[in-house]
Amino acid sequence: MARDFNFSAGPAALPEPVLRRAQAELLEFRDEGASVMEISHRGKAFIDVAETAERNLRALLSIPDDYAVLFLQGGATGQQALLPLNLAGPGEAVDYVVTGHWGAKAVKEAEPYADLKVVASSKAEDGTYTDIVPVEEWQLRNGTAYVHYTPNETIHGVEYLDQPHIPGAVLVGDMSSTILSRPIDVSKFGVIYAGAQKNIGPSGIVVVIVRRDLLERTGQTRPPIFNWKKHAENDSMLNTPPTLAWYLSGLVFEWALEQGGVAALAKVNEKKAADLYAAIDESGGFYRNTVAKRARSWMNVPFFLHDEALDKPFLAGAEAAGLRALKGHRAVGGMRASIYNAVPAEAVSALVAYLKDFQQRHG
Amino acid sequence: MARDFNFSAGPAALPEPVLRRAQAELLEFRDEGASVMEISHRGKAFIDVAETAERNLRALLSIPDDYAVLFLQGGATGQQALLPLNLAGPGEAVDYVVTGHWGAKAVKEAEPYADLKVVASSKAEDGTYTDIVPVEEWQLRNGTAYVHYTPNETIHGVEYLDQPHIPGAVLVGDMSSTILSRPIDVSKFGVIYAGAQKNIGPSGIVVVIVRRDLLERTGQTRPPIFNWKKHAENDSMLNTPPTLAWYLSGLVFEWALEQGGVAALAKVNEKKAADLYAAIDESGGFYRNTVAKRARSWMNVPFFLHDEALDKPFLAGAEAAGLRALKGHRAVGGMRASIYNAVPAEAVSALVAYLKDFQQRHG
Repeated sequence: MARDFNFSAGPAALPEPVLRRAQAELLEFRDEGASVMEISHRGKAFIDVAETAERNLRALLSIPDDYAVLFLQGGATGQQALLPLNLAGPGEAVDYVVTGHWGAKAVKEAEPYADLKVVASSKAEDGTYTDIVPVEEWQLRNGTAYVHYTPNETIHGVEYLDQPHIPGAVLVGDMSSTILSRPIDVSKFGVIYAGAQKNIGPSGIVVVIVRRDLLERTGQTRPPIFNWKKHAENDSMLNTPPTLAWYLSGLVFEWALEQGGVAALAKVNEKKAADLYAAIDESGGFYRNTVAKRARSWMNVPFFLHDEALDKPFLAGAEAAGLRALKGHRAVGGMRASIYNAVPAEAVSALVAYLKDFQQRHG
Repeated sequence: MARDFNFSAGPAALPEPVLRRAQAELLEFRDEGASVMEISHRGKAFIDVAETAERNLRALLSIPDDYAVLFLQGGATGQQALLPLNLAGPGEAVDYVVTGHWGAKAVKEAEPYADLKVVASSKAEDGTYTDIVPVEEWQLRNGTAYVHYTPNETIHGVEYLDQPHIPGAVLVGDMSSTILSRPIDVSKFGVIYAGAQKNIGPSGIVVVIVRRDLLERTGQTRPPIFNWKKHAENDSMLNTPPTLAWYLSGLVFEWALEQGGVAALAKVNEKKAADLYAAIDESGGFYRNTVAKRARSWMNVPFFLHDEALDKPFLAGAEAAGLRALKGHRAVGGMRASIYNAVPAEAVSALVAYLKDFQQRHG
């Protein structure tokens, strides 16, 4: 047994040094005489874990002081339901941009609580998504409570490579699968939220970065646990937070800083993606990626073999070569390599070599 | 450094064998070539983790087949908000019994969504809770959607030692701090829910045991992620579940079965509690527990020293003796020993010895 190269779409690979450190201190955390998951979230030791994690995330993303950072539960999906409850009055208008599966899912969660309109969609007639809709083509309504989009779609591998800027609008981005992959300008957003299980940590924790003035919105009648303002006032400890996941996320933030921060990670990510797309494009049609070049994701690279009958031997050979979790999402089929921050350049090199080798043997 | 005896109220002590096993396989889970937190929740390996955990929990609590078991996020508090959304129509009547801090908090979460009435409360004039209200004294209304109570109150150490039975009513219990501590008759309940961080696992996962016919209730307009039925239909994988916490909970269930199940754990728990209460009662007033004997919690034992000035030296001496997290909740002061399943009898013996020793030195 050994650790393989892991291309899982999420829960995804974590940096090995993070896992080793967690392993080393799993039974005895600092001088607590207990595991980090066995101590009170209100004690000195865990408060330090929580505050350090927030400080490091703020440093990584240059989050301005007028934004609150929350560490919550319920996944990105849970936040999709809380969005209209916190930002929109009952029946108030909200605009949604859909460029893939997750954007469509965000619509379903918000719909019951708002006058929701899909103001842009890149869905093709056959149901697939292979492109973004440029921000100039969003049919935004006047005076909507917010505009929601999904910067990166993991299933289709469709990404907005730049962050749109819409003066006057409250832009909300589901950054689950792109956060920390490159520098972003947080000030362009009203709210950024991100499930952890791609670039942050294990599943079970979600980060919400919200401009503080938005916390003053009345929103809709809701219990305290659905109220972002109350979470902010209580430093994300309105109820018992997922301490183990928070701690692990903090270790990932430390690791990201040690790598040189998001600018350095972005350089590696850009090259990983470029190398993989090049190998696909140069295969003479043996492999193909159907996403428009302006929208090709840095994080998720779906591709198809020219003959579906080769899918099974391709996957079996990959696993034998220590390349794991390459099967595409059932909604689209084919293959998918997710190459988040914790997937090293060597993993992509090994995959590229395997692509060539497999083609030689089956071409 | 070493592992101390840990009396934390939650996140609380976990069985050491569980932590050792998690540590051993933290980087390489089975033959996955990755950590359990790095693999897809929809893959064979994790599905087995999830199904085994559910099967073992069903065995431990003898959960009848007509109950669904969900593993969700958001803590017990999150479920308190979902309760009326799933079980009550808009403005429908729901009855709440309050015997401590957590019962009162449950009221706040449900209130926005129901015609909520507190039908029994043991709150004293000075704001404290030192007793239950026997089920015969609950002023239940006719035809309410459900009746909610909190079997064990961690802060006050007040527990219903038997489960009430109310024919015809849908009884809902927040069992966060008592689940798995003794055998229960699940069939008396409509819903049992429990945050994990006492007797189940790390914080960040909550178990909901719900009678299947209740999933057919219309409830209130709500997004899919707030809908228990959709979670049940998707085997708690409507969105990415907290896989690491689920896995750890499963290890705790296995450990509990190895101990002989809840009947065997109950015997140990009963004796741990009896020994500790006896030491307090026999101290001649040096220590005191003010809870009515019929309601003394098996899991959380709050106590006061006869002189508050001794609190600090008591806690310092305890920590030096390897007895951790004995400080009482700030709402009531004094001391509290939480003695959940994973706190061994030896920990209680050591605490009892320390109580006597401290009294001798300061009595």
